[in-house]
Amino acid sequence: MINAAKAESGEFYWPVRIYYEDTDAAGIVYHANYLNFMERARTEWLRHLGYEQDRLAASLGIVFVVRKITIDYIRPARFNDELTVISSVQRLGRASLEFAQNVVANSTVLSRARIKLGCIDSNTLRPRAMPVDIYSEIANAAG
Amino acid sequence: MINAAKAESGEFYWPVRIYYEDTDAAGIVYHANYLNFMERARTEWLRHLGYEQDRLAASLGIVFVVRKITIDYIRPARFNDELTVISSVQRLGRASLEFAQNVVANSTVLSRARIKLGCIDSNTLRPRAMPVDIYSEIANAAG
Amino acid sequence: MINAAKAESGEFYWPVRIYYEDTDAAGIVYHANYLNFMERARTEWLRHLGYEQDRLAASLGIVFVVRKITIDYIRPARFNDELTVISSVQRLGRASLEFAQNVVANSTVLSRARIKLGCIDSNTLRPRAMPVDIYSEIANAAG
Amino acid sequence: MINAAKAESGEFYWPVRIYYEDTDAAGIVYHANYLNFMERARTEWLRHLGYEQDRLAASLGIVFVVRKITIDYIRPARFNDELTVISSVQRLGRASLEFAQNVVANSTVLSRARIKLGCIDSNTLRPRAMPVDIYSEIANAAG
Repeated sequence: MINAAKAESGEFYWPVRIYYEDTDAAGIVYHANYLNFMERARTEWLRHLGYEQDRLAASLGIVFVVRKITIDYIRPARFNDELTVISSVQRLGRASLEFAQNVVANSTVLSRARIKLGCIDSNTLRPRAMPVDIYSEIANAAG
Repeated sequence: MINAAKAESGEFYWPVRIYYEDTDAAGIVYHANYLNFMERARTEWLRHLGYEQDRLAASLGIVFVVRKITIDYIRPARFNDELTVISSVQRLGRASLEFAQNVVANSTVLSRARIKLGCIDSNTLRPRAMPVDIYSEIANAAG
Repeated sequence: MINAAKAESGEFYWPVRIYYEDTDAAGIVYHANYLNFMERARTEWLRHLGYEQDRLAASLGIVFVVRKITIDYIRPARFNDELTVISSVQRLGRASLEFAQNVVANSTVLSRARIKLGCIDSNTLRPRAMPVDIYSEIANAAG
Repeated sequence: MINAAKAESGEFYWPVRIYYEDTDAAGIVYHANYLNFMERARTEWLRHLGYEQDRLAASLGIVFVVRKITIDYIRPARFNDELTVISSVQRLGRASLEFAQNVVANSTVLSRARIKLGCIDSNTLRPRAMPVDIYSEIANAAG
């Protein structure tokens, strides 16, 4: 099944269908929208580990924020395409997390990114260590 | 000057330039994005009257929310087009406000909308009368 | 199964998950984004009937465009919510189509819309009758 | 005047106002939207040099596409903020172009990016050298 984690590899697969809203007048997917697809995939990955971001914010006061992105655009996607975002954790710190995320179509890589997140306190907006259970769960999932 | 209110008519003009982000693979402006242009114009209209929505929320606890939209799409807009949103208040209630908003290019109407807003309490999310000074200012501007 | 048409009623159900990209600083789903959800649902409904819009454009030169929308915003949706778009055809003409589309969460209606589409020639941009097989398929699906 | 190029430095300033559409439920500008602001600024920079992208595509068959982005998110922006995108060309090749683009508010850098573009043939989608006059104009503007 495509939208499940491949436990052995630590990779998480999430499908994305391209709608009109995602495209631009050049006939292809607008470059900024790949960041949306990747954010959806990270949200689903965290959900898959058992964590809902709204509850993390409400009950623990922690939020994950994007610190840095490096993204290569290799080939364009088009209206109606079925893409897959393949995500895996590359580095894990007490208050940070780095993903590799590739957007692929039929095993061709369209876009390749590294995305660094920080865990912050939602009130002070300052870095804050993740709760131990989340840290362990991620460490475990990352294999 | 185009981005100023025409006091005599109660109409407020706000320019919008079309960028790639606004278009879709059909080569035209994606239909939902006209609602963004209209929202920008209402924000600027309120600013023009002297009210900043972030301060209204922070100091008075009031927020304007969209209740109902009727919009006709008459002609398409394209990448690089320079449009103007022409806004005017059509009805004013103690806790509601109705706009006519047209998006035009070179005096051709591309899209024509009626947009009904409610004024709500940002905590309870229930309808709340606008402060008297805002109500009066809007009544005045609407001519 | 939720994302299937209910043949007996002519209603088509399509699920939508709310991500950060869909929300705004008021903490709720930004009003224009409901139009995206509805557009996705119409695309999936047409796909469910066996028609892919990219192929309709490429092989037959026809495109469906939005002519008119009336939408009521009844209750807000929030980050992480699971919504369903319920779509049904209300009127069918040779070159036009009108949908009722409701966005619901746990059987509460959040937003209710009527959306009128036109079928146009992708070159001339003028109204054009749908191919008979599509017309019949839609008439059939609409019950 | 802020939205003019500073000829001596090769920097181009473009203002961006933050509207509701740009924000998310965390109360800040959604990370992907900074790429929109930067794309608007590049479009305006090219227009400032005398080139309209729709005409470049229609008459010369060339399009600029994003190849690679590196972006650091340093501080958040919020609803109603007035930002400035400061753009400058860092490298210029026959069929490529690299920008530094910073998004600032009151001289504080919120986001800092490097954006590499390719010039392609709009039919073949293959790299194509820019016309000499555009290349010279950019080389000149870049100082």
